Amino acid sequence: MYFKKVAIIGVGLIGASFALAIKNHGLSNHITGYGRNEEGLKDATNLSIIDSYSIDLDDVCDEADLIVLATPVGTFIDIAKRIKPKADAVVIDLGSVKGGLVLEIEDLLKGKAYYVGCHPIAGGHHSGFRYAKGDLFNNALCIITPTPNTDKRVLKQIEDMWSSLGAKTMHLDPFKHDEIYSLVSHFPHLLSYALLMTVYKEDPKSIEFSGKGFRDMVRIAGSPAQIWKDIVFYNKENLLQNITALKTEIEYLEDCLKQNKSDEIYQYFRSSQEIYQRLFNPT
Amino acid sequence: MYFKKVAIIGVGLIGASFALAIKNHGLSNHITGYGRNEEGLKDATNLSIIDSYSIDLDDVCDEADLIVLATPVGTFIDIAKRIKPKADAVVIDLGSVKGGLVLEIEDLLKGKAYYVGCHPIAGGHHSGFRYAKGDLFNNALCIITPTPNTDKRVLKQIEDMWSSLGAKTMHLDPFKHDEIYSLVSHFPHLLSYALLMTVYKEDPKSIEFSGKGFRDMVRIAGSPAQIWKDIVFYNKENLLQNITALKTEIEYLEDCLKQNKSDEIYQYFRSSQEIYQRLFNPT
Repeated sequence: MYFKKVAIIGVGLIGASFALAIKNHGLSNHITGYGRNEEGLKDATNLSIIDSYSIDLDDVCDEADLIVLATPVGTFIDIAKRIKPKADAVVIDLGSVKGGLVLEIEDLLKGKAYYVGCHPIAGGHHSGFRYAKGDLFNNALCIITPTPNTDKRVLKQIEDMWSSLGAKTMHLDPFKHDEIYSLVSHFPHLLSYALLMTVYKEDPKSIEFSGKGFRDMVRIAGSPAQIWKDIVFYNKENLLQNITALKTEIEYLEDCLKQNKSDEIYQYFRSSQEIYQRLFNPT
Repeated sequence: MYFKKVAIIGVGLIGASFALAIKNHGLSNHITGYGRNEEGLKDATNLSIIDSYSIDLDDVCDEADLIVLATPVGTFIDIAKRIKPKADAVVIDLGSVKGGLVLEIEDLLKGKAYYVGCHPIAGGHHSGFRYAKGDLFNNALCIITPTPNTDKRVLKQIEDMWSSLGAKTMHLDPFKHDEIYSLVSHFPHLLSYALLMTVYKEDPKSIEFSGKGFRDMVRIAGSPAQIWKDIVFYNKENLLQNITALKTEIEYLEDCLKQNKSDEIYQYFRSSQEIYQRLFNPT
């Protein structure tokens, strides 16, 4: 598979890493970038992350056979409305929420382009093209969220593309995707932000005394606010359910502490320890 | 400084690492270990982590000039009551809670031995002497919690010992220690256990889809239950306050989501991102 022209909408960490990966694997010789910050786009071009750029969406999408949405998810609808893809162009997004958003994008692009929702599980709390890595997707999982309307041939092509970049692909229903990633990503992010803010408000100087445990728990509290604000609102219903579930657990532990239920706390920690060992440290 | 005989009470990850560090730095040629599991002690001796062992506390402490409490903190009072140190022996503990426990131990050992409370910030979620590392304390922080009754000469000796092992020492009031470490360690552990249990109960299969963010947040949910049960009860008052503070933050976020307050969520995430950058990623 080869793309004559790839248009990256949003040249941040993920978009730029995708550009590098496509280039490194020889899947295209013309990668062009769109963004609002012309200086950044110029720098990304000088760093050979992209081959050209424009701050005009029509320029960038013109003749592109692959258009990649790599902006914060809150902008996808607007972009899907504005782009004018050439006939047979394929549009993918690299966003962290799917669900109804996938159906909306699909609907907006109907008759204009093929669309496949993708969520590569890669990234980090850094943002910006300067942190881009051409091997970011190597050995990563990429969730693909086809719908009954997804073109089978295009789906296969996009799966093959991810395989070429070293990623392992897996299909999920878009709504199931959001349930799962609320639990294992979006809610943990919300909790990490809340933990850092709690500790900082209680005693900012305490953080100087922290070790690896704390640092690992608040690492994702350094994640870019704009990206995560969009994600939490798009996945709000699942998140509200997760918050309720966590509060139940926390209140159980609070009650155990207050009532000196040490056997119950021991059993709780022990269950957690066993689950962790089984899932992450099998011997 | 040199110890003719060092008695390690509890040859787990921390006790065994301390034994190796003492040996590697030539601070003693006779390190003996006490524990309840004779097979484990035999193995630790065969691995040259300790030089000898006994399941008799009197044997192990006999003639020891340094006695090291490295069992779960819930056992310290009992051990402080039972040991019969030789005159001028120094007792230290390596526990993660201090506060009133330090005063109790001090009181129990008054007239029997010198005592200095120590909390090396090192370890990990693994437990047991098989994970021991002789350089565990190298470049680590070690909090020392002297009281008005602490002997100045002995305090200096213990500080010098930690420096010899490569650790940086710092003094804290025992109660201030517990306030700080509740925030940056004990409460994050409680929250990590609660997060893993929440996600597991909601959808155990979801964990297969998790990435580095989730894995880092639940790493300490694999910590040994026995050790952490003791810690949370000894630091319960601070923990209950931290739980209340976190609930306030979580409920604020919950309200923002429900009321679609996207500017507020953005500002919250942005504050967290800035605090993280400033504290952990200064450029």
